[in-house]
Amino acid sequence: MTQRPLPDERRPANDGRRVAARNRAALVAAAREIYAEYGLDVPLSAIARRAGVGQGVLYRHFPDRAAVATAVLEENVGQIEQAAAAPGADIARVLGVLTWHQTQSAAFINILHADGTANRSGIPAYASALSGRVERALRAHLPDDHRLAAAKDDLMIAVAMVSGAVTGPTRELREHRALAAWRLLGVEVGPVRPFDDDEGGQPPLD
Amino acid sequence: MTQRPLPDERRPANDGRRVAARNRAALVAAAREIYAEYGLDVPLSAIARRAGVGQGVLYRHFPDRAAVATAVLEENVGQIEQAAAAPGADIARVLGVLTWHQTQSAAFINILHADGTANRSGIPAYASALSGRVERALRAHLPDDHRLAAAKDDLMIAVAMVSGAVTGPTRELREHRALAAWRLLGVEVGPVRPFDDDEGGQPPLD
Repeated sequence: MTQRPLPDERRPANDGRRVAARNRAALVAAAREIYAEYGLDVPLSAIARRAGVGQGVLYRHFPDRAAVATAVLEENVGQIEQAAAAPGADIARVLGVLTWHQTQSAAFINILHADGTANRSGIPAYASALSGRVERALRAHLPDDHRLAAAKDDLMIAVAMVSGAVTGPTRELREHRALAAWRLLGVEVGPVRPFDDDEGGQPPLD
Repeated sequence: MTQRPLPDERRPANDGRRVAARNRAALVAAAREIYAEYGLDVPLSAIARRAGVGQGVLYRHFPDRAAVATAVLEENVGQIEQAAAAPGADIARVLGVLTWHQTQSAAFINILHADGTANRSGIPAYASALSGRVERALRAHLPDDHRLAAAKDDLMIAVAMVSGAVTGPTRELREHRALAAWRLLGVEVGPVRPFDDDEGGQPPLD
């Protein structure tokens, strides 16, 4: 019966891993919410508090501020890449997912447009890598005759312009302003929403 | 000889006023430079240090962080109002002065687009008054058939969009990006420069 685990040796470890995974997910979710409300410069203690864990647990998963921000932003960028890789993807649709994250996360906007100056969050180097991944995801779907394909910098300048317009106390208002900005740029944008993995296998909507 | 001041009574007071005026001007100039480089959240001690005065002197002129920011921003906005009031003013010219201040001052951009959320600088209430003054200065010269006159919010959304594009380590790069942003918006912008009082009486350039 070598298959049967010894309770004292195996179960605590499994439980521990499960608790650890749950704690990490709770911390990333809490950080996402708090960043969306306050930006990246919130104290880590606020994130631990919202996640319902002690600060010791937070530090076990994330050694510093940058590690928490990275985990959240990695998922923002990952969604845009997934949207670009999905069947039926086109520039309007990928811009729609990008715009969702712009309206939902001030932190995401910060990393998109980090210009190399120091800040307290400590992520500018990582930010430019993430920003590059967003640009590649968009550019893969940019037709040669697109309004933003004429000059090299226009695509990411336009993204920065929409980020600048995305202010306001509610996500709805920020989405309204983002759509007004794309309209002023003469750029069509697909549905503004997060990318959902489950959509991956579905046929395109249009 | 009643004209001759009594040295002990008059000169110290005059000198004191002169020194005070000079210190205040040095503090505002130092704050402008430091805000342009780092934004509004710099410690007041850094401003006093750059101005070459003690912190006690700073606090005599400006009771708190908001008072320093206000003095600087008041002048930013004042220049845009003067540009709007100058002979030969038109929307392109006023936008040129606005754009100069956008490229020169991160703090000015912050107040233009404050959305009522709390920040460490403590100026949001004042910010919306200043932002309103900028909007009035621009709107006074906005022709009915202008690209930004179609919908009520378009003017200030466009200004926010240009603010979003104005990133980069040098003022020259920020100006380059600001002009690209106005081009993408299809909006003509006059020379990008500060408003100089001396121009007031000159005939328009075009």
